[in-house]
Amino acid sequence: MIIRPQQHWFRRLLGWHGSVLPHIMFRLGLNLAMSVIAILTYQWYQGFGFRLTIAPFSLLGVSIAIFLGFRNNASYARFIEARVLWGSMVITHRSLLRQIKSILPQQEQAAREFAALQMAFSWSLKHQLRETNGREDLLRLVPERWRNEVMNSPLPTNRLLLCMGTWLGEQRSKGAISDILWQSVDANLNQLSAIMTGCERIAGTPIPFAYTLILHRTVYLFCSLLPFALAADLHFMTPLVSVFISYTFLSLESLAAELEEPFGEEPNHLPLNAMCVTIERNLRDMNDDLPLPAPALPDSNFVLN
Amino acid sequence: MIIRPQQHWFRRLLGWHGSVLPHIMFRLGLNLAMSVIAILTYQWYQGFGFRLTIAPFSLLGVSIAIFLGFRNNASYARFIEARVLWGSMVITHRSLLRQIKSILPQQEQAAREFAALQMAFSWSLKHQLRETNGREDLLRLVPERWRNEVMNSPLPTNRLLLCMGTWLGEQRSKGAISDILWQSVDANLNQLSAIMTGCERIAGTPIPFAYTLILHRTVYLFCSLLPFALAADLHFMTPLVSVFISYTFLSLESLAAELEEPFGEEPNHLPLNAMCVTIERNLRDMNDDLPLPAPALPDSNFVLN
Amino acid sequence: MIIRPQQHWFRRLLGWHGSVLPHIMFRLGLNLAMSVIAILTYQWYQGFGFRLTIAPFSLLGVSIAIFLGFRNNASYARFIEARVLWGSMVITHRSLLRQIKSILPQQEQAAREFAALQMAFSWSLKHQLRETNGREDLLRLVPERWRNEVMNSPLPTNRLLLCMGTWLGEQRSKGAISDILWQSVDANLNQLSAIMTGCERIAGTPIPFAYTLILHRTVYLFCSLLPFALAADLHFMTPLVSVFISYTFLSLESLAAELEEPFGEEPNHLPLNAMCVTIERNLRDMNDDLPLPAPALPDSNFVLN
Amino acid sequence: MIIRPQQHWFRRLLGWHGSVLPHIMFRLGLNLAMSVIAILTYQWYQGFGFRLTIAPFSLLGVSIAIFLGFRNNASYARFIEARVLWGSMVITHRSLLRQIKSILPQQEQAAREFAALQMAFSWSLKHQLRETNGREDLLRLVPERWRNEVMNSPLPTNRLLLCMGTWLGEQRSKGAISDILWQSVDANLNQLSAIMTGCERIAGTPIPFAYTLILHRTVYLFCSLLPFALAADLHFMTPLVSVFISYTFLSLESLAAELEEPFGEEPNHLPLNAMCVTIERNLRDMNDDLPLPAPALPDSNFVLN
Amino acid sequence: MIIRPQQHWFRRLLGWHGSVLPHIMFRLGLNLAMSVIAILTYQWYQGFGFRLTIAPFSLLGVSIAIFLGFRNNASYARFIEARVLWGSMVITHRSLLRQIKSILPQQEQAAREFAALQMAFSWSLKHQLRETNGREDLLRLVPERWRNEVMNSPLPTNRLLLCMGTWLGEQRSKGAISDILWQSVDANLNQLSAIMTGCERIAGTPIPFAYTLILHRTVYLFCSLLPFALAADLHFMTPLVSVFISYTFLSLESLAAELEEPFGEEPNHLPLNAMCVTIERNLRDMNDDLPLPAPALPDSNFVLN
Repeated sequence: MIIRPQQHWFRRLLGWHGSVLPHIMFRLGLNLAMSVIAILTYQWYQGFGFRLTIAPFSLLGVSIAIFLGFRNNASYARFIEARVLWGSMVITHRSLLRQIKSILPQQEQAAREFAALQMAFSWSLKHQLRETNGREDLLRLVPERWRNEVMNSPLPTNRLLLCMGTWLGEQRSKGAISDILWQSVDANLNQLSAIMTGCERIAGTPIPFAYTLILHRTVYLFCSLLPFALAADLHFMTPLVSVFISYTFLSLESLAAELEEPFGEEPNHLPLNAMCVTIERNLRDMNDDLPLPAPALPDSNFVLN
Repeated sequence: MIIRPQQHWFRRLLGWHGSVLPHIMFRLGLNLAMSVIAILTYQWYQGFGFRLTIAPFSLLGVSIAIFLGFRNNASYARFIEARVLWGSMVITHRSLLRQIKSILPQQEQAAREFAALQMAFSWSLKHQLRETNGREDLLRLVPERWRNEVMNSPLPTNRLLLCMGTWLGEQRSKGAISDILWQSVDANLNQLSAIMTGCERIAGTPIPFAYTLILHRTVYLFCSLLPFALAADLHFMTPLVSVFISYTFLSLESLAAELEEPFGEEPNHLPLNAMCVTIERNLRDMNDDLPLPAPALPDSNFVLN
Repeated sequence: MIIRPQQHWFRRLLGWHGSVLPHIMFRLGLNLAMSVIAILTYQWYQGFGFRLTIAPFSLLGVSIAIFLGFRNNASYARFIEARVLWGSMVITHRSLLRQIKSILPQQEQAAREFAALQMAFSWSLKHQLRETNGREDLLRLVPERWRNEVMNSPLPTNRLLLCMGTWLGEQRSKGAISDILWQSVDANLNQLSAIMTGCERIAGTPIPFAYTLILHRTVYLFCSLLPFALAADLHFMTPLVSVFISYTFLSLESLAAELEEPFGEEPNHLPLNAMCVTIERNLRDMNDDLPLPAPALPDSNFVLN
Repeated sequence: MIIRPQQHWFRRLLGWHGSVLPHIMFRLGLNLAMSVIAILTYQWYQGFGFRLTIAPFSLLGVSIAIFLGFRNNASYARFIEARVLWGSMVITHRSLLRQIKSILPQQEQAAREFAALQMAFSWSLKHQLRETNGREDLLRLVPERWRNEVMNSPLPTNRLLLCMGTWLGEQRSKGAISDILWQSVDANLNQLSAIMTGCERIAGTPIPFAYTLILHRTVYLFCSLLPFALAADLHFMTPLVSVFISYTFLSLESLAAELEEPFGEEPNHLPLNAMCVTIERNLRDMNDDLPLPAPALPDSNFVLN
Repeated sequence: MIIRPQQHWFRRLLGWHGSVLPHIMFRLGLNLAMSVIAILTYQWYQGFGFRLTIAPFSLLGVSIAIFLGFRNNASYARFIEARVLWGSMVITHRSLLRQIKSILPQQEQAAREFAALQMAFSWSLKHQLRETNGREDLLRLVPERWRNEVMNSPLPTNRLLLCMGTWLGEQRSKGAISDILWQSVDANLNQLSAIMTGCERIAGTPIPFAYTLILHRTVYLFCSLLPFALAADLHFMTPLVSVFISYTFLSLESLAAELEEPFGEEPNHLPLNAMCVTIERNLRDMNDDLPLPAPALPDSNFVLN
């Protein structure tokens, strides 16, 4: 499941990082303008007793860096947790089908039916998290006997899990699997339930809005005032240093905001699509259900989605 | 279970963040007043040898930022743990009912009875954590045969879990489920026990009070003295810089205090109510017990509770 | 299990925080004295070329703050882990008794006998961790047939767990419970073993002593030298700023030292007593073994122990 | 499984650290050149009002150090997680074979066949992660009846796990092991699935590229500008201090970049080869399948790979 | 398992901390010498334009403190993980023997034989981790029928675990325990496998050497240059401040290096010996196999090993 895009570093620099730089370009421009204003006016307004020096900004800047470090940690932790949850999805789907094939050898039809529910589950969760329409994927994948039930439910992903449970219960009822084997498979269904709900939690509960707002405000105000604090000491060097410091703070703040919502379709978000294809490839390969769908490839901007 | 409120960013800014800004408004006003006093008096009192400079405040400010970062981490960890516990609640309830329906197919009555205990458990825990009266919800949900037992117990949430255990034991006694299936369901009951007790732990054991107090005191004193350290260098700029730095420290300290107790009904607290509705919707949908209750929506201030 | 004491904030401020302030009062007084000496003498000794400025103390202070942040994290992690272990104790005891009552319905005597062993286990662990004499509690709780065995063992807490295992084995031998049910209960006994040993680990392995010593020394020396670095710049303000900075560093260092050993009986330690009462109340309530013992309440200093 | 290379500290210094120093040698040289230019020119360009002082660089440097600390943490966490996953591989393989030998005593042939699949699984995962050709190792290890199936699959590592599941299912079908024993072994196969997918996740999802880029850029620009900020104050000491500070920042940034991809063949990467040999030695020893392969030893540069 | 040594604080200060102070004594002395040189020469070499000021050292010092904080975290995490693994060892051994005694009541001989294998396992792991000769302990503990097999194996600790698996398989073969009970005990054997391999991982994979080297170098160079940066400002106070700052950095760097390898026999390392005795005491007490060995006591330097 190697999903790292292969690309020339220069295009990657422009293509990927574009996702942060465009977001802060306007504010960096503003900062440049403020720097010029600061150089032109500081001697005039200092005459009235309005003075700014670097010392308090140093204290403030380091404090903001510490709080921004906290926010980066929190956002990155959400990104990583989301990635781990989708990794567990791959783990669990592989384990589930391996169990079914070990318990019910030579029953290819049953294994393919179950695998179809598994694949539908992944795609359905992807659509739920991105708030896109999963109708087409469900039509393609869900076996006919459950199609109506799933597609009419307001909570189709959870309903698919219920169908897997029903399928398993039927195998037990007709004696194909014992209670113990039911238990082993059921433990992996619990796992899918945990993965689904974990993703819903990340999607549904952002970092407390006040954190985001406090840091956004303070970073913004800090960068705006900075040129006025630097102008007296640095004079013509003010724009360079001010834009540099602003770039460091604004870009990290902006990236943290992006990683906070890992299920989107921006370049720094998780490639859910590619992961669903990976799951489908794995399950179909285990069932010798050829040909496999092609692995997802980065688009012309070298972005997987 | 998407519970993210949809709202105009401007109203969100006023509505949500209002929960922190009002709390510190008074202290920011005080800081402004101190700044004015500092500008008016610093030349006078420096004449007597009472001098404050920025350097020691820089050392102190950065140290406080480091300790405040620690406190933010601790508070946020409590918030996240509480959210994860309620996420596990959703996971476990879904898994439990899926197990019951897989094990006992076509026994709709039994599944609905068990689901009623599950729903009552969530609502009861909500009321326990918020110290509100859960009588109404228990009356609405608990099946009649357990109603007296539960409502007379001093520990109704734990008693509901005991009832689930009893229900399960009865199914086993009458041979409807085997020991092994009992074991699988029982593992999820253990999980509910862990969730309930985890929430009680967070509600009952605050961050050691001395931490809160030391940081509250030092942040407060730091902000009060700051204008006197800035006045000599910044003169008329003192109020702006002093209020800005104070805003950064006070708002983060205030938010940390709020997140520390995640089960309240303030805007930055967890929407326990909405989560109980989500659980009820999921369980009723799985039982085709229609119509589903409407999902909880943010109120006119865009706050879910 | 709400164990948060209800009290007037002012008394709480005096009563709780008293646990840190008294410990550092002497050192703060010393710091005040040093400040006065510094103001009186700095012009004299600077004449000989002995000079201290704020700059190196700024570097040192921030470094110490970073290392103190590390120590705070480590101490707080111990406190939290200890609290989580005792939370798991409540979880596991509730689950164990729920299992017994689900497996062996209508066998009230057996359930009460087992619950007695559970309660004795909690109290015995409390006494072991606090190195107090648990004889009275063991006499009160341990059923007669195991009393001698437990009270003569050099390791009574572990012996009580062995008794639970024996009790369980007997139920299995006489056919009251199947191997599978034995397995489910046994998994929770493993859990109790993990809790007991985890607490022993925290109690028996402090943070490496060298950490404690290095930080204690550097904080102490830093605070003692600080007035001499401040005096030239701040003059009469030296005592205020010096005591303020010292308060911040000394109180956090002192609190970290206290939290490092969470099983003591100081105000910032864990209320093991109250938690044992909570466990007893829960188990007796589940057995309808009335009247329940009263919940533990804070003493006149608003401290639970 | 002691894989620490034994070597003279001086050679270790040159050999191991070489992996970082060569990467930054060019940039350190550039920094030295900039320092010389700065000393020669600063008086000239300051005449035009282009001034740089240390104060804003101090603010910037500390901020970058904080963010670099975050990046180091993230990279090191990936390294550690990768190492723990391969440690779990050793754990699980040992446990699996111990189970097989405990369940099927005196069936040496079966145990060796299963162990062969286990060894092939480790080597295959190594080749997958390093994107090398595993054909030779698969030919050497995979028992003949599965050889074609495995070697023709586009996902051979996962296919090997499927084969272990099939092998286990066959033992169950022919009555050699009961459902319960199947369950215990199957739980460890789930574990192998988790390990494989965890490694794929680390290999396939780098730290968001924007983080890497932002820090790489800011560290680089910071070091390039630094000499111009130092020259006025330090004069001829500029090169020493500038190269020293640059060394600290560049080397940590460079090492973080290296640890981010722990499955490579550089000296600071994980010795996957040595770990596969360790697994093979353990499994063969348990089967008394002598002689054991020699443990992997560091090469002439004291590097294990 | 209280292993905290009881000692007079003054001797503890000398005895324990001695493990760090002697390691850095030489470097502190060097620093003192450099300070004297700096005071004597700074006016002379500044005349040639070689100037050092505190400002860049402040930036560098805080950065190094941040990175050193990272290294301390990593080393301490290794120490804690090692301690938790040995705590799990105690947990698992207690649980295993409790299970055996619950399953096979009145079979004292069998329980003692199994306990002997358990004790041998702990001692053997200790010898493996410390690279000492375990022959004597194995001769004392391993029951005769397995003695040759274990003592001839190149991997005796893992072989002992295999013997426990074999012992368990024999009990199952002769019908003394059912498959389910086999499963419960086997789960704890998996746990022992995880503990053994986790310890091997910590012992065999140090923190990437480049980290250690970069920090060691920068701390060392920083401390050596520091006096020259301080001399102009502090004059005769240079030695005091320089040695103080150096002590803080060097001692933490030295302690981090020591904790990184927690299985040694230095005073800040884990008392593996005492823990093996604790395990032996617990298991013998559970079997009423009296008299118990005496608990390990600190030596005359108050050090447990």
